[in-house]
Amino acid sequence: MEIHPECVPCLLKRCLFEARAVDEDKEREVVEEVLTMLDELFEEGAVSAEVATEVHKRVYDILGTSDPYLKMKEKSNENAEYLLKKSEDMLKNGSFRDFVLLSIVGNVLDFGYRDDIISADYLLEEFDNLMDEGLGYDDTDEIENLLEKAENVIFFTDNAGEIVFDTLLLKKIKGYDVHLTVVVKGEPILTDATIEDALKYDIDKIADELKTTGGYAVGVDFDKLSQEVKTKLEDADLIIAKGMANWESFSETDHSPIAFLTRTKCEPVSKTMGAPYDKNVAKLFK
Amino acid sequence: MEIHPECVPCLLKRCLFEARAVDEDKEREVVEEVLTMLDELFEEGAVSAEVATEVHKRVYDILGTSDPYLKMKEKSNENAEYLLKKSEDMLKNGSFRDFVLLSIVGNVLDFGYRDDIISADYLLEEFDNLMDEGLGYDDTDEIENLLEKAENVIFFTDNAGEIVFDTLLLKKIKGYDVHLTVVVKGEPILTDATIEDALKYDIDKIADELKTTGGYAVGVDFDKLSQEVKTKLEDADLIIAKGMANWESFSETDHSPIAFLTRTKCEPVSKTMGAPYDKNVAKLFK
Repeated sequence: MEIHPECVPCLLKRCLFEARAVDEDKEREVVEEVLTMLDELFEEGAVSAEVATEVHKRVYDILGTSDPYLKMKEKSNENAEYLLKKSEDMLKNGSFRDFVLLSIVGNVLDFGYRDDIISADYLLEEFDNLMDEGLGYDDTDEIENLLEKAENVIFFTDNAGEIVFDTLLLKKIKGYDVHLTVVVKGEPILTDATIEDALKYDIDKIADELKTTGGYAVGVDFDKLSQEVKTKLEDADLIIAKGMANWESFSETDHSPIAFLTRTKCEPVSKTMGAPYDKNVAKLFK
Repeated sequence: MEIHPECVPCLLKRCLFEARAVDEDKEREVVEEVLTMLDELFEEGAVSAEVATEVHKRVYDILGTSDPYLKMKEKSNENAEYLLKKSEDMLKNGSFRDFVLLSIVGNVLDFGYRDDIISADYLLEEFDNLMDEGLGYDDTDEIENLLEKAENVIFFTDNAGEIVFDTLLLKKIKGYDVHLTVVVKGEPILTDATIEDALKYDIDKIADELKTTGGYAVGVDFDKLSQEVKTKLEDADLIIAKGMANWESFSETDHSPIAFLTRTKCEPVSKTMGAPYDKNVAKLFK
């Protein structure tokens, strides 16, 4: 996805959120530096995820941390575990669509850029409403059709906490008798799940293979993917990508067929994806 | 008030809001230009209102308009007129505090920088809640004491729509047998009321004198005030200043005694003012 004008205040807000989480005294330095960077990087044709990667990397350096969101991610996992207990009963005989919905609802665990989503507790407060909303864009039948015929499926995760809900969807996917590869982030980035989160929730046991994106990036930096993951991506009969940053990255490529499962939390993503804003979206691109 | 790190995304968001209101095709140019300006202007010691004045001036030029908020301001006036009818009964025997509260509640008619306040309809939806909230910081007794002894009072208005509610407060103030000067903006800036709004609501008849700030500025540019208004400001036994931008400007001066009547819609203002965030605030500085 090309960087949009709205991405600029959003990115600044998020960097400020990171500074506040780690060291309030560095807020001013962070904003000064990000302004200088964006003055150079914000231009037609620039890819939002690539700009965001560069900017956040610099902010992490200024703040002297490799993971400003660590505590928040722990809290996301904790809240998701609590809700999972509730959901396991609810989803005992759940359909593929039910597990897709749950996994998308978990995608709200992504904070620091909207005034209303600033902590993992948002999910506790809004969980029932988000589930009741259902899917605002629903390609699950078509996605399920592809799954039924698929041999190789590759699944790119997004946030901590969300990954707890993903475990149920991953188990459901395995029920279609596919070879399942799950890819988590190679380094801590924003609120995203890392290999530690994946191992904590036994994704290495649920999936056939557990891989990483190979480095620091918002979404996926395709240059950093290992040859093995690149091959799996080429060979996949279905790619499933969670969250907005994966849209921002994959929409610049022609990998297909690919199902995006996300909460559309910002307008540039919802518009470019052709899906309604602020909804639970399961959209397939063949 | 010194410019805060939070002011940067906020300003960008507001400029983007202006571009969207006038010409969406210029969003990108606006953001590029504002980034370049802020990269230079955002520095320790810079005054938020002065930076905002410079930035908005440039955006208005790019957009080729002298008033991107014109239609929104008309809607603000319209909604306030509707609510005033409701309030006149309610406030038939209202106290000074009641009229101060109403006038502060009108201060929410200021949009484009917060996700939840984007149109004049926000006031219609939230009016009863905002009135029920009452004052979150209440110096009205002390302000009334000063009024009782005052000869000369000068009152700086803020937004269109809000000015409709101000008329009731201005009438109440005139009841204390003071010489009352009302100052509105000299040129259209953001959602602020201009001389046209003041005349529409007979403020020239309610007050003893109606003046303007003398030019284009967020809040007050003291260099642009006429000598007459400067003298009135010096001689005033009480200054009343509505809204956050007036805080941002007057807090850089030693004019006193001054009562700020505002909704504290952002944290830098509430923090520097020493008042709670997102409340109806009447705070006196002697």
